[in-house]
Amino acid sequence: MQTIQSSSIEKRVNALRNKMREKEIDATILWDPDNEYYISGFRAISYSRPILLLVYQDKTQYILPALEEEHAKLNAHVDEFYIYYETYPHREFDTTYIQPLNRILSDLPKQTTIGLEMELVPASFAKMFESKSFHIKDVTQDLIDLRAIKDEEEIYWLEQAGHLSDVALKASFNHLEPGMSELEFDSHGDRALLEEASKEYPNHIIGYENWTCSGIERSAMPHLYSSTRKYDQNDVVVHSRQVWINGYRAENERTFLLGEPTNEQRNCLQLAIDAQQAGFDAVKPGVKASEVDIASYKVFEDAGYGKFVQHRIGHGLGLTEHEEPYLRFDNDLVLQEGMVYTIEPGIYVPGVGGFRHSDTVIVTKDGCHSITKYPRDLESLLF
Amino acid sequence: MQTIQSSSIEKRVNALRNKMREKEIDATILWDPDNEYYISGFRAISYSRPILLLVYQDKTQYILPALEEEHAKLNAHVDEFYIYYETYPHREFDTTYIQPLNRILSDLPKQTTIGLEMELVPASFAKMFESKSFHIKDVTQDLIDLRAIKDEEEIYWLEQAGHLSDVALKASFNHLEPGMSELEFDSHGDRALLEEASKEYPNHIIGYENWTCSGIERSAMPHLYSSTRKYDQNDVVVHSRQVWINGYRAENERTFLLGEPTNEQRNCLQLAIDAQQAGFDAVKPGVKASEVDIASYKVFEDAGYGKFVQHRIGHGLGLTEHEEPYLRFDNDLVLQEGMVYTIEPGIYVPGVGGFRHSDTVIVTKDGCHSITKYPRDLESLLF
Repeated sequence: MQTIQSSSIEKRVNALRNKMREKEIDATILWDPDNEYYISGFRAISYSRPILLLVYQDKTQYILPALEEEHAKLNAHVDEFYIYYETYPHREFDTTYIQPLNRILSDLPKQTTIGLEMELVPASFAKMFESKSFHIKDVTQDLIDLRAIKDEEEIYWLEQAGHLSDVALKASFNHLEPGMSELEFDSHGDRALLEEASKEYPNHIIGYENWTCSGIERSAMPHLYSSTRKYDQNDVVVHSRQVWINGYRAENERTFLLGEPTNEQRNCLQLAIDAQQAGFDAVKPGVKASEVDIASYKVFEDAGYGKFVQHRIGHGLGLTEHEEPYLRFDNDLVLQEGMVYTIEPGIYVPGVGGFRHSDTVIVTKDGCHSITKYPRDLESLLF
Repeated sequence: MQTIQSSSIEKRVNALRNKMREKEIDATILWDPDNEYYISGFRAISYSRPILLLVYQDKTQYILPALEEEHAKLNAHVDEFYIYYETYPHREFDTTYIQPLNRILSDLPKQTTIGLEMELVPASFAKMFESKSFHIKDVTQDLIDLRAIKDEEEIYWLEQAGHLSDVALKASFNHLEPGMSELEFDSHGDRALLEEASKEYPNHIIGYENWTCSGIERSAMPHLYSSTRKYDQNDVVVHSRQVWINGYRAENERTFLLGEPTNEQRNCLQLAIDAQQAGFDAVKPGVKASEVDIASYKVFEDAGYGKFVQHRIGHGLGLTEHEEPYLRFDNDLVLQEGMVYTIEPGIYVPGVGGFRHSDTVIVTKDGCHSITKYPRDLESLLF
């Protein structure tokens, strides 16, 4: 089962090769699982055994542990495989990734220029190359740039992830009951999305994560794992969900109010909704990341809540939970069609609560399009 | 809510300080989330914003993004906090972790020796230190060694994780139906463990991951994510689950046979059960990791299935999905009381299926004790 089409992989590898030519890099050695998946179509389940993807102008190579061999050969669009082993019957073969890597490197001409993801590879890994005569160039940013603009196939999967996240939110809200725990609320959504996915997308890989922060104290901390805390009568709850299919992620977050919220809590949630709308309105090709962030921030500032803003308005999304480029006040990056961002301005007010929706938008020719559609308005979020 | 007791943290920090004195390290700068949690009791939800924990002989410091500030101050046992910001109203403050780090470093005497996790920190991060006059020593192995022996509090949480994983397996098997998908099978277990956790462990952080590989082809690949593939009439299924509470993980895996398995499939599962028992029997203080791996492997070899072994018998477990030290044929490490391992020998036979149970054991004074207890015998796993 190859989940990413050959034609997409071919375009991506060629785009990387173009960058390598521009930077005069002879071989790029990838270490990061998401970068490897993007370039080869193969993702392992765990990386406690290192996996390397080597890209040259004329071929690609994988260095893999034996237990990924069959899986990789089914999924990866790659020319050559080097397998290493960890078991007694294979003790005469390579038993670490370093052995095949060293053989490959020793066949390269001296002064070869090698591209490494210097912001992602371990320091000890980069040091192995420094002790040889190679010239190292950092390719972290090149991969970020390639991955920032999504192709048609990626957008298809992002849309499906958005749909599944909406199914999950709907189910969680349909089952909302007083006294249920954060994790129980999440679990109704999990179950619904898995049922929907099993029906609609047979033989695909689905994943999800939830972070539900309930209560005045917990909701006012923007980043917490869901816990077994039970909902109280008049809680503010920030429910956050990411869903992925074939690796592509949608983020979908809603703040909701239980029981009898105070006027300030209602106002704060309305402000977060308005700030998010200002973000949606600002996103289009040619606009700077900083402009989107500041447009949204101004809504909070004008209402006197500017000091309760703790984070940027959004982050890139695709294969990684948070990916660059970020929508920050100090980022001059110009938005382009095909980029994907979360729009999630929030305020965290001590004694009142936290207030943030998040939606995932694709930058279109003249604006943006949200792949997450669960209702955002205040009235739909009072329970 | 501090989830790890002060007394445990104090012991761990002191143990790290002892190692620093032995190695003449003045300051250790931790980057890895699990190492930071182990030493401070605080875990953030995401690390797209770097978080550093600095440990000296006389104090500890955190460098954190603003949105983790309140959460960290509730949970972390740390002396000083340096906060950096990413929002427009805070544009006059530090806006990256590098600013406070540079101020801290510039106050240190020249020739200070700094400990870094060289196998975990990005190469670009280590390079910042090399360009200054500091002496760098690798502390990766020191943290592995500290974390390998679990303390009483850690063992308590591991036991709870084991219990929750058993609850989940029981529920998944109770709901087993022909034609359900891998992910639906998982979801019954998820729901049951969240209900149990919400009842038994209020206000704690629970997490889980499942990998269910069904069918002759998928089960024969040891490492796959659960998919929406539906169970077939005569499937071999390897269901794998990790559950964690307060960060501490138990792994619990069972292979089961649906419908009318062939004699070879029954024999292969019985072999995996016997090989696992040989592993349990071999684990005790004073034994080498290699001896456990080879004892288990011999069961497969004696039956003529040695060539279908693709991976080591087990890995360390605690805060990280797979943690060192590993139970490999070439590891001379001597087991000690308080270490925690998975015991999970497996064979993957083309055209027949994959066969592997995994349980999580704690090394005791004279053997080992499994924290996962779901039935392992063949008869219990025929459906």
